[in-house]
Amino acid sequence: MALYGERGFEQTTVAEIAKRAGLAERTFFRHFSDKREVLFSGAAALEALLVSTVVTALDDQVPIDAVVAGLETAGALIQQRRDFSRQRQAIIAANTELQERELIKLASLASAIANALRQSGVREPAASLTAEAGIAIFKIAFERWVNGPDELDLPTVIREYLSVFKDVTARG
Amino acid sequence: MALYGERGFEQTTVAEIAKRAGLAERTFFRHFSDKREVLFSGAAALEALLVSTVVTALDDQVPIDAVVAGLETAGALIQQRRDFSRQRQAIIAANTELQERELIKLASLASAIANALRQSGVREPAASLTAEAGIAIFKIAFERWVNGPDELDLPTVIREYLSVFKDVTARG
Repeated sequence: MALYGERGFEQTTVAEIAKRAGLAERTFFRHFSDKREVLFSGAAALEALLVSTVVTALDDQVPIDAVVAGLETAGALIQQRRDFSRQRQAIIAANTELQERELIKLASLASAIANALRQSGVREPAASLTAEAGIAIFKIAFERWVNGPDELDLPTVIREYLSVFKDVTARG
Repeated sequence: MALYGERGFEQTTVAEIAKRAGLAERTFFRHFSDKREVLFSGAAALEALLVSTVVTALDDQVPIDAVVAGLETAGALIQQRRDFSRQRQAIIAANTELQERELIKLASLASAIANALRQSGVREPAASLTAEAGIAIFKIAFERWVNGPDELDLPTVIREYLSVFKDVTARG
């Protein structure tokens, strides 16, 4: 990923990435479907952690709180890689295609959460709406954290934004 | 757009689209930056209508209700083109790049709404969270409507889903 930062995502070829990583190009494509995927390589593990935390939290929390509990756990993991996250964000912000890929990953996280909620007995459209609410909170909290001062704690921002979210969507 | 339906988005060239529309290729590119944009051509007008409705509704409604009032107005417009919407949805569902473009359009709608809320005095993060909540409701309501029976009224589905959304995000 350092290469993307040095010379820009578009100017970096797969051959260069593979060389820097000490891999053959063929090996690169065994791991990543294209060069965009390098930036999203932890996504599957993060999704699995998120979903399993949500399912466990549903035992004693209402769905929206369970979803946010999962997002806080994922947020704690992301926070361990603050510098990586910031570099990655700068690369994505500079490239429309990468922004699109980022949004589709968030949308597939929302689908995975909605699926887990349905399997735990939450009906539609509540399951999808709850999952989308969680992802909306995560998206805005992450933007705040990644662009904010070093002291910010991502799980805390997520929890605070859940509270603001409940206020702004409260019945009048 | 009929061409995309007939032979698939990927198999259709700009030259063919331009020919079907009776345009020179150069004229096509004066109107659309690429062939994906054909499917998103009404987006700017829709965004303008949405934002102006939200701003007016803020006079006597809380932000989330004002945002949903704007989305209902946009929904009424979309509903006038039900067959177009369905064809378009089928084309987008079959192509990952188009799904990404659709998501980035929704994200830019959310930004436009958040911007309008801030200019009307809503602070952050409430403005961004309210805008994302509205787009989440719209996204799930639209999916229901576009895949549902003909009798469904999109503005009604949006309003109903706002109500479910308030229930699922209510303080316990």
